[in-house]
Amino acid sequence: MTLTPADETLARLIRADLGDDILRPVTERYLEEPRRRFAGHAGLLALPRTVDEVSTLVRLAADKRVPVVPYGGGTGLVGGQVMPDGPAPLVISLERMTAIRAVYPTENTLIAEAGAILADVQAAAEEANRLFPLALAAQGSCRIGGNLATNAGGVNVLRYGNARDLCLGLEAVLPSGEIWHGLSRLRKDNTGYDLRNLLIGAEGTLGIITAASLKLHPRPEAVGTAMLQVASPQAAIDLLSLAHDQLGDGVSTFELIHKQGLQFLTEVLPDVRQPFATQPKWCVLIELGLFAGHAPADALETLYIAADKAGLVGDAVIAQSEAQRMDLWAVRERIPEANRLIGSVSSHDISVPISRIPEFIQHGAKVVAGLGPFRINCFGHLGDGNLHYNVFPPLGRNRSEFDNERQAVKHAVHDLVDAFDGSVSAEHGVGRLKVEDIERYGDATKLSAMRAIKAALDPQGIMNPGAVLKP
Amino acid sequence: MTLTPADETLARLIRADLGDDILRPVTERYLEEPRRRFAGHAGLLALPRTVDEVSTLVRLAADKRVPVVPYGGGTGLVGGQVMPDGPAPLVISLERMTAIRAVYPTENTLIAEAGAILADVQAAAEEANRLFPLALAAQGSCRIGGNLATNAGGVNVLRYGNARDLCLGLEAVLPSGEIWHGLSRLRKDNTGYDLRNLLIGAEGTLGIITAASLKLHPRPEAVGTAMLQVASPQAAIDLLSLAHDQLGDGVSTFELIHKQGLQFLTEVLPDVRQPFATQPKWCVLIELGLFAGHAPADALETLYIAADKAGLVGDAVIAQSEAQRMDLWAVRERIPEANRLIGSVSSHDISVPISRIPEFIQHGAKVVAGLGPFRINCFGHLGDGNLHYNVFPPLGRNRSEFDNERQAVKHAVHDLVDAFDGSVSAEHGVGRLKVEDIERYGDATKLSAMRAIKAALDPQGIMNPGAVLKP
Repeated sequence: MTLTPADETLARLIRADLGDDILRPVTERYLEEPRRRFAGHAGLLALPRTVDEVSTLVRLAADKRVPVVPYGGGTGLVGGQVMPDGPAPLVISLERMTAIRAVYPTENTLIAEAGAILADVQAAAEEANRLFPLALAAQGSCRIGGNLATNAGGVNVLRYGNARDLCLGLEAVLPSGEIWHGLSRLRKDNTGYDLRNLLIGAEGTLGIITAASLKLHPRPEAVGTAMLQVASPQAAIDLLSLAHDQLGDGVSTFELIHKQGLQFLTEVLPDVRQPFATQPKWCVLIELGLFAGHAPADALETLYIAADKAGLVGDAVIAQSEAQRMDLWAVRERIPEANRLIGSVSSHDISVPISRIPEFIQHGAKVVAGLGPFRINCFGHLGDGNLHYNVFPPLGRNRSEFDNERQAVKHAVHDLVDAFDGSVSAEHGVGRLKVEDIERYGDATKLSAMRAIKAALDPQGIMNPGAVLKP
Repeated sequence: MTLTPADETLARLIRADLGDDILRPVTERYLEEPRRRFAGHAGLLALPRTVDEVSTLVRLAADKRVPVVPYGGGTGLVGGQVMPDGPAPLVISLERMTAIRAVYPTENTLIAEAGAILADVQAAAEEANRLFPLALAAQGSCRIGGNLATNAGGVNVLRYGNARDLCLGLEAVLPSGEIWHGLSRLRKDNTGYDLRNLLIGAEGTLGIITAASLKLHPRPEAVGTAMLQVASPQAAIDLLSLAHDQLGDGVSTFELIHKQGLQFLTEVLPDVRQPFATQPKWCVLIELGLFAGHAPADALETLYIAADKAGLVGDAVIAQSEAQRMDLWAVRERIPEANRLIGSVSSHDISVPISRIPEFIQHGAKVVAGLGPFRINCFGHLGDGNLHYNVFPPLGRNRSEFDNERQAVKHAVHDLVDAFDGSVSAEHGVGRLKVEDIERYGDATKLSAMRAIKAALDPQGIMNPGAVLKP
């Protein structure tokens, strides 16, 4: 079925139904994505204020077979938010739907509109003395609808799960324009197929999320953070097991950092305070959130003593103040910025089963070394098996010199991930960047089921065409 | 499309492909369900040993348009496991696929075949010093495939989530006979639509789960249990908030019990030790699982003191031994047995938003009183908003005298649940019992999406026809 561009005819219909204020000039920022791999185009940009307006927009687009691109905070790293080719789409940005509709502290739930900035959702939860644990680098600008559409991960997945695990219900507009009123605040509801989880992670290809009912958690009484040198990735995994044995769910964050990341910080962000006088080959950032008067500094001390006895750790820094805690976090959080300044040849958001991580890292180093004199910065959410495995040019050289090697590096890393039963898209999603990867590595039965579902819910193929699945 | 019965022609094809041992005589137990609301029929019964055999069976059935009923432990309470009418189906029981294929303690994962008994999965986890937290009354006979197909709940949902939340991946046979190899051990994997959660809770209508990769948790170091009298359901909710503030995720179980349940025990199960000399109107069973040397008895004591100060609680029993703990649990766990012995007019597995529970209970009492001289036993998983709201004949009379009132009671309770934004199927599923309820109370857009998905994945309608959706 051929799609048609969003043009003046559609604009007139939209204005007639929803008024003049709904359409805005398409500015550059709606056509860019952070990694500049894709440049979008658009025929029209609509900024609806209500779910009914979203419904009307989608219905009008569906009538005319006009492609629709849902737009959240624009921070996605896989090009799901920009359509580079085909008939110019109608971009629907949720930026005017930012209300926190309600907070229910007793129920540990909160209802937010899709355009709410993640940090604002966190703040609304905090105001009610609750925790909304989704936390990631882009939290100051990403929007909760996008977080859900991409099933965002971040640094607290180990304890609290992905965006998927933090959602109880959705309000959404399906490709037909029909509204699903599914803002359930229920913890248990077994009334039919799981439409919620189908929309979560579908990256706007099955509908537009307009609001969500979110799970809150009790706020830990006290938080403690430490950076520990570990002998190897295996030692890091053993340290995590030890931490789980001692503290159970009390472990909120467990991040692996390689020396390369620390060196990049020295190289391009020298203002970041280094945690150790001598940069260790591997270290981990651990954060605890504890209750019932249990002091995190003591717990970290106890953990360190046991880990030291087991030969797992070297030096360690246990944050003694909020300022020190922020310093430790800055090391982890500014590594992606350093990566961007250095400029990677190829970046990979991958996961492998946790127990296979050490072997994967070993093999990966060999495979990449076989392709050229690259530097590897491998870091990330060890507790979830999610590594950001990024490959850089040697010191003093530029990524652009290796444009011809990019595909080979990517394929080699992804092939290895596949051989280790891993995922080539751990937390960033498929977007437009990894459509071919999931065709290459994905399960054939799952792919054919996905195509059948897409055709069933979006028979005209208007919703975010080209994302996740080939149109 | 007309389906045809599983007959001798199909039997011959099955035997030719898979040998004589695969088919067994259809005995009574495959045609019954615990509540005796539905009596099934079946043309053939197959007991496959591998996913490939399941695939062959489904393929042959699909070729002949024979309905297929997947069969787990047979413990479901809504008739999802028995097909009472239409062409006699091929029943596929997973009882020979019971292997725990692997346990990965470092990863906190376990891979079990669908026919594994829930208690065996729990035991395999325990052997690796881990916890598989799904726990429910039928755990000695229900099978993990059925638990997933129905998204089972139970007493630990508050802390660990439903069956859905404990599953990382599936191996399944789709209605086409194709095998989905999706036994991921990954905590983060954003490669396309969430087929896993679509099959979970679909009650065998979109395919047959043959194995699952399950999430394990650290085993709490110490467990503590108490029964506390509370002044009202609101006091119970406030007590839960207080417990969360003090102990966070440490609260594993929070069950509400009404005096009626205690009286039923006295009436029909007098051997159950009553927790209090005088039966309180309301009490709660709370269980903590703690780490890091934190003593549950002390934590319960601290909680009790604060709750007492806030006027929330009356008398309390804190278990001082494992025997005492078992006694407290017996009170909660034997109430369903007492209910069965008394014989309910109508039973309801419902949920409402937690903060609306007190109002719901108040209204419910009035509504039911308006219908007749019934006794209400309202109890269950308060922490999840999930109540078992069961309506009984007055003392000395039999449920059969109220057969004519059953529908009116059910409708009145479900109407009220709906008015409170609740669910008429919290943890038991839809099965065949509640197909009309979800048509009546469900969101129209969601229902039409469900039908589209069913038609897309099972165009012939062979998988468990009549369950969840009308055929």
